[in-house]
Amino acid sequence: MKVAIIGGHGFLGQRLAKRLLQKGEAVGPDGALQPIDELILIDQVAPEAPLEGVTTIIGDVAEPGFFDRALGDDVTSVFHLAAIVSSAAEADFDLGMRVNLDATRALLELCRAMPIAPRLVFTSSVAVFGNAPPMIEDDTPALPLSSYGTQKVIGEYLVNDYSRKGYLDGRCLRLPTVVIRPGKPNRAASSFASSILREPLQGEMAICPVDTGLSLWIQSPRVVVENLIHAHDLATDAWSDGARILNLPGLTVTVAEMIEALARASGDTSLIRHEPDAEIARIVGSWPGAMNTPRATRLGFSKDETIDAIVAAFRQEELGGAR
Amino acid sequence: MKVAIIGGHGFLGQRLAKRLLQKGEAVGPDGALQPIDELILIDQVAPEAPLEGVTTIIGDVAEPGFFDRALGDDVTSVFHLAAIVSSAAEADFDLGMRVNLDATRALLELCRAMPIAPRLVFTSSVAVFGNAPPMIEDDTPALPLSSYGTQKVIGEYLVNDYSRKGYLDGRCLRLPTVVIRPGKPNRAASSFASSILREPLQGEMAICPVDTGLSLWIQSPRVVVENLIHAHDLATDAWSDGARILNLPGLTVTVAEMIEALARASGDTSLIRHEPDAEIARIVGSWPGAMNTPRATRLGFSKDETIDAIVAAFRQEELGGAR
Repeated sequence: MKVAIIGGHGFLGQRLAKRLLQKGEAVGPDGALQPIDELILIDQVAPEAPLEGVTTIIGDVAEPGFFDRALGDDVTSVFHLAAIVSSAAEADFDLGMRVNLDATRALLELCRAMPIAPRLVFTSSVAVFGNAPPMIEDDTPALPLSSYGTQKVIGEYLVNDYSRKGYLDGRCLRLPTVVIRPGKPNRAASSFASSILREPLQGEMAICPVDTGLSLWIQSPRVVVENLIHAHDLATDAWSDGARILNLPGLTVTVAEMIEALARASGDTSLIRHEPDAEIARIVGSWPGAMNTPRATRLGFSKDETIDAIVAAFRQEELGGAR
Repeated sequence: MKVAIIGGHGFLGQRLAKRLLQKGEAVGPDGALQPIDELILIDQVAPEAPLEGVTTIIGDVAEPGFFDRALGDDVTSVFHLAAIVSSAAEADFDLGMRVNLDATRALLELCRAMPIAPRLVFTSSVAVFGNAPPMIEDDTPALPLSSYGTQKVIGEYLVNDYSRKGYLDGRCLRLPTVVIRPGKPNRAASSFASSILREPLQGEMAICPVDTGLSLWIQSPRVVVENLIHAHDLATDAWSDGARILNLPGLTVTVAEMIEALARASGDTSLIRHEPDAEIARIVGSWPGAMNTPRATRLGFSKDETIDAIVAAFRQEELGGAR
């Protein structure tokens, strides 16, 4: 089978690719495990360190005709992770619409044109909830207060309807904030949530733009990747019509609790500079800090147990246990 | 002020135009009543009987650049009623996407480009609810089971986000099934709901494709038009961010109760031929039959009192009281 990862050079895409290479197989259209014959990574930028054993395609996913040129009609599965992140989509509305909405539609159209409807895993976000109640339930309506959240919820509805029509076999996951994201800060409004742990653990300064009382709903990169593959491999009939959109389980932590975990891991908490940013505080503050996710739990999705375990895994996996 | 009605030659558009001409004024950008200087009706087809005192523009709303050519940049208010209806959008997915999604986006982009953000009233539908619970509440999540419902809910989210960004001042109304729609049957899955009253009242045969126990959530054309204007005229701060989408009040009737009302109005119920249609029954059966709409009531939206009053008004207004 042929598997494509759109946004394959981002940190989640790279991690997902490594895990798929390691497993060597995934569930195919007939519902049985099949060997992965080709793994295609598509992104607008080149990978930092190219992975061996993958096909690399660089290009602008929002350019008309891009997907038709980049992918054949024999793709079995697509993981669609590519997005303009929250603060960037808020700052550049047209860019967000082009990538988060138009490119998603182009991808869905390509899937529809394939002779065998592929499985598609679409990453949405808890950003679809704006000024949400303190506890989000499986059936809480999405009312985003950001263009990013709006574009994500529209993507979910499209994937849902294309699936209902039989054009593809879609699964939408609303991801928690991913902590600890390795690499550099990006333009996700939640970028600080990784920075305040990642940078001090490496002896560098980090900026915290929000109140330390803010609650976040988080999941580690390792658990996100396991959940992406789990969503892909689940049987089609686990995703009934109108129920292809799923809130993932997660862990509630306050910013203060993250800083306490940093201290326990011997990180220097004085490296965090508190610089309030009203716009970031507004966007992140409108996202849910806690969710009740019985449906995802019933379907076998997993969550992290503690923030300390997430910090320990980051030190082990990304810092080589050196600090 | 300059008011445009997209879909202005449909029966609701024509009725809305007449009512606006009669009133002669509407609430302008400053929040005060202003005279309507120009009323522009846009549609793909010519009107059956052209209205005096309006500007008529015929064209394909989904054609790129159409709105830029058809409308200036000085439009104060837009009523967007144009749509490919439910069964037609289900039968021709691409046509539905082109008109219900792409044309709506093009219209929103034109509004965004105007120097003064116009008021926009967007007609959505109870079709956004699929396999809904027996009673829909103001915060019941939309999970459509039709492409029409999907396209409408996407339109709502776009109007909501464009409004939040200040690109326009949008108001989305989820309309009940409109009964009694005059004219001929159309490709709305709910078209039978008008036919089974309208045709027999005129001595003609009608087809009923659903079980008579089916409950419908209905509103008369007169009340729909009053609610469209009410939505337009309401102050901007009645429509807070993320709350620009409204379930309208309505009346719950079963198909059997409609047929009983027909009998009371001296209509010949033997003119209704019962021919079950599984696809129509599936689509309409997934829509809500009852809704609890405290928010709309608080905002001053109105509803019909009885099905008999709706039948009487139709006979008076459309049949000239002749039958």
